[in-house]
Amino acid sequence: MKLYIGNKNYSSWSMRSGVLLAAFGIPFEEVMLRFDFSPGSDWHRIIPGVSPTKRVPVLVEDDGFAVWDTLAIAEYVADRHPEHAIWPRAPKARARARSLCAEMHAGFTRLRTVCPMNIEAFFPDIGAKLWAEDEALRADVARLAAAWSDALAASGGPFLFGAFGAVDAYFAPVAVRLSRFGLPVPEAAAAYRDALLAHPAVEDWVAEALREQHFVPEDEPYRTTR
Amino acid sequence: MKLYIGNKNYSSWSMRSGVLLAAFGIPFEEVMLRFDFSPGSDWHRIIPGVSPTKRVPVLVEDDGFAVWDTLAIAEYVADRHPEHAIWPRAPKARARARSLCAEMHAGFTRLRTVCPMNIEAFFPDIGAKLWAEDEALRADVARLAAAWSDALAASGGPFLFGAFGAVDAYFAPVAVRLSRFGLPVPEAAAAYRDALLAHPAVEDWVAEALREQHFVPEDEPYRTTR
Repeated sequence: MKLYIGNKNYSSWSMRSGVLLAAFGIPFEEVMLRFDFSPGSDWHRIIPGVSPTKRVPVLVEDDGFAVWDTLAIAEYVADRHPEHAIWPRAPKARARARSLCAEMHAGFTRLRTVCPMNIEAFFPDIGAKLWAEDEALRADVARLAAAWSDALAASGGPFLFGAFGAVDAYFAPVAVRLSRFGLPVPEAAAAYRDALLAHPAVEDWVAEALREQHFVPEDEPYRTTR
Repeated sequence: MKLYIGNKNYSSWSMRSGVLLAAFGIPFEEVMLRFDFSPGSDWHRIIPGVSPTKRVPVLVEDDGFAVWDTLAIAEYVADRHPEHAIWPRAPKARARARSLCAEMHAGFTRLRTVCPMNIEAFFPDIGAKLWAEDEALRADVARLAAAWSDALAASGGPFLFGAFGAVDAYFAPVAVRLSRFGLPVPEAAAAYRDALLAHPAVEDWVAEALREQHFVPEDEPYRTTR
């Protein structure tokens, strides 16, 4: 199967699915569709034929069958690979992990808006300014830290439910945002952020993002050039 | 278990979980937390103790264990009730149903913003004006109709994957929006919209919404009074 992704530097949703598959050693072919929205680009030429929503990531089977959206991809992979604990084995932990993923999927909108993922760029000054001025951002980070701390206290860590799973892949881009914008979090949340950044699948993704060296204006509220 | 919901007239997310449980005859106690955001309201008094996100719906077990967010609730109920086809039994149909739910969960933002659910109110003139002027709304409805038509053509209907399931509960509030704002959809999508509105669990929800007779200013972009 193929996983179509966007730029590794910018596409936080692609990162969730890519890191999940890599972390569990599930074989797939990665197809990068660079974020280039100019007329006649590869993006415009290829995406309508593979993704019903015209978005990435999308997982496409050899027969053309498409699974779109990160949550559906996680469930599909879990269905197909019951040998892997993509979700926690215990029913309540599984329900909690899914609640957290769903919350991430449609929530934390302020964090996502003002601190977009940009792996190669560090914005500590902008992060400090946002932190001082933006109450909604602080509320998002406080909720995030509380959710993480609750799960870590129950499991003992190092990942939210012990071993690395789909929910951790889901929060990997958040660890990047916290790191790049230098947003402060309590100790338990900081340890989890660092555990995410040190996971081999995350490290590989970050290393490949750094090699891209593309500049996508649509994803750059704070820079005019690389 | 208890399902905490908001006003049936307005809370499209509550409707998804409430209709799902009712449609499959799964026993639960419904607890309505009326949308009243004034200081000292029941909402402010109760919601922090039951919902980690301070949102509805939230499913709470007798021991206090909470499952929040409609997607996680659907998965939890499916896990606990394997005797019900909450998701389609066939793996590909299941993956497709989850893709559609996830797309609904974070997408169709223009439709959700300009046509909020308001079961008791009919806005055909506003709907016609929006339809004429709002290209993003038309794009959302076109995508919706295409997704529905594809699934219905494959399954034969009357619901997206044949029998009623979680994905149909997910689209029930959309059927209300299309109906209340009089938005035009092609024949197959219209037949599905009507099948949703005629499902007993949806009819019951609508009937109870009509009995509420509350006015929530935060959810009323187009009325100043009932």
